[in-house]
Amino acid sequence: MKRIIILAGVLLCAQPVFAKGDAAAGEQKAMMCVACHGATGKVSVPMYPNLAGQNAGYLEHSLQAYKKGERSGGQAEIMKAYVSGLSDEDISNLAAYYASIKP
Amino acid sequence: MKRIIILAGVLLCAQPVFAKGDAAAGEQKAMMCVACHGATGKVSVPMYPNLAGQNAGYLEHSLQAYKKGERSGGQAEIMKAYVSGLSDEDISNLAAYYASIKP
Repeated sequence: MKRIIILAGVLLCAQPVFAKGDAAAGEQKAMMCVACHGATGKVSVPMYPNLAGQNAGYLEHSLQAYKKGERSGGQAEIMKAYVSGLSDEDISNLAAYYASIKP
Repeated sequence: MKRIIILAGVLLCAQPVFAKGDAAAGEQKAMMCVACHGATGKVSVPMYPNLAGQNAGYLEHSLQAYKKGERSGGQAEIMKAYVSGLSDEDISNLAAYYASIKP
């Protein structure tokens, strides 16, 4: 029962997010991501996530959360340092770029 | 310069993690993940991440971090509730299963 309530909450809170960024502009910004996330969003170091083909909405939400310090644990501090200088537009563009790559 | 130091730290800390789980056993456990992460690890709600083809090492590390409460922000509390009953073996198996799915 508890799980059903949690699930209902998850689904009610889920708002679709649509990619609105410029993938070509995102590709230019993605140079800063290559060392950990691979040249095409596919990593060689398995402790980091692949980004190629990931949902733009999720990527944008995550990058904003790192920037705002809303995430902790894992590589959150490092991610915050990397994304702190990005504008909202940069973040949208990066999300659109990685979502556009075939995984 | 700061970025170079951060990058060096990231690379030095990166330890390869190899999948050791049983994907078939993981598939059985994955029923609990379907509502948010899709029947085959590809989501229909863009605010959640696709899991199909993600690195097993990253998935395992993330699930352990959720279970231990080492992550906050985003859906961390919900993820903690979902994975709190999973054993280390369950987590390895789930990671192996999602890593095995073609994205």
